[in-house]
Amino acid sequence: MGSSAADGNGSVDKGVDFANYFCTYGFLYHQKEMLCDRVRMDAYYNAVFENKHHFSGKVVLDVGTGSGILAIWSAQAGARKVYAVEATKMSEHARQLIAANKLQHVVEVIEGSMEDVVLPEKVDVIISEWMGYFLLRESMFDSVICARDRWLKPDGVMYPSHARIWMSPIRSGLVDQKIRDYDGAMEDWHSFINDTKTFYGVDMSALTKPFDGEQKKYYLQTSIWNNLHPNQIIGKSVIIKEIDCLTTTVDDIRVVQASVSSSITEETARFCGFGGWFDVHFRGSEKNPAQQEIELTTAPDQDFGTHWGQQVFLLHPPQYLGSGDELTINFSMSRSKLNHRLMEVDLSCDIKQTSGKLLPPIQKKFYIE
Amino acid sequence: MGSSAADGNGSVDKGVDFANYFCTYGFLYHQKEMLCDRVRMDAYYNAVFENKHHFSGKVVLDVGTGSGILAIWSAQAGARKVYAVEATKMSEHARQLIAANKLQHVVEVIEGSMEDVVLPEKVDVIISEWMGYFLLRESMFDSVICARDRWLKPDGVMYPSHARIWMSPIRSGLVDQKIRDYDGAMEDWHSFINDTKTFYGVDMSALTKPFDGEQKKYYLQTSIWNNLHPNQIIGKSVIIKEIDCLTTTVDDIRVVQASVSSSITEETARFCGFGGWFDVHFRGSEKNPAQQEIELTTAPDQDFGTHWGQQVFLLHPPQYLGSGDELTINFSMSRSKLNHRLMEVDLSCDIKQTSGKLLPPIQKKFYIE
Repeated sequence: MGSSAADGNGSVDKGVDFANYFCTYGFLYHQKEMLCDRVRMDAYYNAVFENKHHFSGKVVLDVGTGSGILAIWSAQAGARKVYAVEATKMSEHARQLIAANKLQHVVEVIEGSMEDVVLPEKVDVIISEWMGYFLLRESMFDSVICARDRWLKPDGVMYPSHARIWMSPIRSGLVDQKIRDYDGAMEDWHSFINDTKTFYGVDMSALTKPFDGEQKKYYLQTSIWNNLHPNQIIGKSVIIKEIDCLTTTVDDIRVVQASVSSSITEETARFCGFGGWFDVHFRGSEKNPAQQEIELTTAPDQDFGTHWGQQVFLLHPPQYLGSGDELTINFSMSRSKLNHRLMEVDLSCDIKQTSGKLLPPIQKKFYIE
Repeated sequence: MGSSAADGNGSVDKGVDFANYFCTYGFLYHQKEMLCDRVRMDAYYNAVFENKHHFSGKVVLDVGTGSGILAIWSAQAGARKVYAVEATKMSEHARQLIAANKLQHVVEVIEGSMEDVVLPEKVDVIISEWMGYFLLRESMFDSVICARDRWLKPDGVMYPSHARIWMSPIRSGLVDQKIRDYDGAMEDWHSFINDTKTFYGVDMSALTKPFDGEQKKYYLQTSIWNNLHPNQIIGKSVIIKEIDCLTTTVDDIRVVQASVSSSITEETARFCGFGGWFDVHFRGSEKNPAQQEIELTTAPDQDFGTHWGQQVFLLHPPQYLGSGDELTINFSMSRSKLNHRLMEVDLSCDIKQTSGKLLPPIQKKFYIE
């Protein structure tokens, strides 16, 4: 591509960023999907209303208010003033909604990028639902960090206060499906090559290698949104990143690196790759703790799925492992050069079986698109 | 949206335009879809090889060469020199393909926007596959016009040389499906309103009207890509725009306006809206005509579909009409303010039945997204 949303130094073209990213959030349909996520809604609702002491009489900043729901709850929980910042035209709907709920004297909607907005005062609480797939996709936490460093009082609290990224070995039929899809695409390509030579006199086979690369990336190297069933988890879940929202810097999250160990917990299991998810907690701060700690988890759950689902990183071919087999995982996630809101993952995995046998090491690159 | 690809004066942010538009053309998968369109391929192939006199020993410019197929054919037909301009990184694949077909001494691939490219000489032929859905979506013909005005010799020829936009009254089951989809989305919204009030204490009904507008636009006012069967055409097809590619200016196509008459040709038919498509012709120029005129049509055809399909503009509710009923259609298509490559259509239709009865006039806005 001759042009991209972020150059190598991390500077972002705002127009391009809008075209690529923010535009989605301008649709009520998309807002509704988030507002219908009961796990998400219950967690924030309980976090606010079971910790009214953090809101009552306080000044609150809602980063990326969308339709305004968190700003409204903050006001209903007794905030003296709420600044609700939103980059898209959704700000107009938020304003409407706030007026209809008779909170316009408390909640002030400000349309603009958090990075540009100037508030008349510092705030006691920053609340934001900034989490993307696998926590960090969308890189929206950058804007929350920016807001915190500029506008949060020294003893202020963050909602949520903590976040963690998790991974676990899984089994998944997707591993077979994706291989079939990839094989089908390549078969199709080879007939295309033949037809183009036969009917149109052009030898396209010079493009086979780049086409193969494109298809491999699409079918085999792109992580997949999936709602995993808990019984697809075949080993120990491990934490690959912990974030204290009060202190983490952008440099701390620009690259996520972890060397972790897991092990298979099923007697025998078809190891197909890894599932990844996150959780966040609302604990207030050390000086100013929550009365009631709330957790929002997007871990696989039979009954309570979220719109975030889980990200699946498939390894080909799958292999059968047994209870106690040990996985040593090296994980590194950084931002895509062409779009800082997307991610690239380098994943390696060494497997030591209980017999002492070492399996051939696995090393693979993934894209979180 | 706070930012857009084109401002009111038609100036375009290139980075945004890339993010919105060109990026698709950087994928070989997408190129393959176009290269597998036999109607498209046959028309261009025959246009070139049945009119070798236009190419033999000549200088050719291919605007938006993609994988390079038209440039390769031009060279194979005897061109002395072919300039193949491509804005995306597909240019690198084109270069590979051209080398693999041993034409690198004839075809020069130039990566860049046609608007910026400087050629060392004027050209005898401009060849380009610039047609979007309903001909003008994508506004790529602007770049062809720019190329023509800057680089075509006075007696040069355009491939294709002419283009036409067509419309016809149709029947379509989509009219029922889209209403069902819209009704379903609104029912769903009303339960959401109730739930949000009950469980989270927020009255969202202030957003019902804008949500309804968003859903109406999406389900009922957005034209639909469809492969129509010829028996879905229930009346006389009419031309709403003719373009001479040698003389048309950007001002001539920025707004397409037509007042045309059609009539129902079926004995009784359920009038559900209009189908729209285009054709282009390869006729050379008056001074320098084709030896063999070639037509590329995207009209509904039982056997020969194209990747362009047809655009369907649905009218709700459908109504039963009879043979000879007359439709007076006022059609106006302009570019979307937020993205100059998308279109907005104002369509009105007066229906006079053979009995002399005038039906209530229809007036509707559509978006070609």
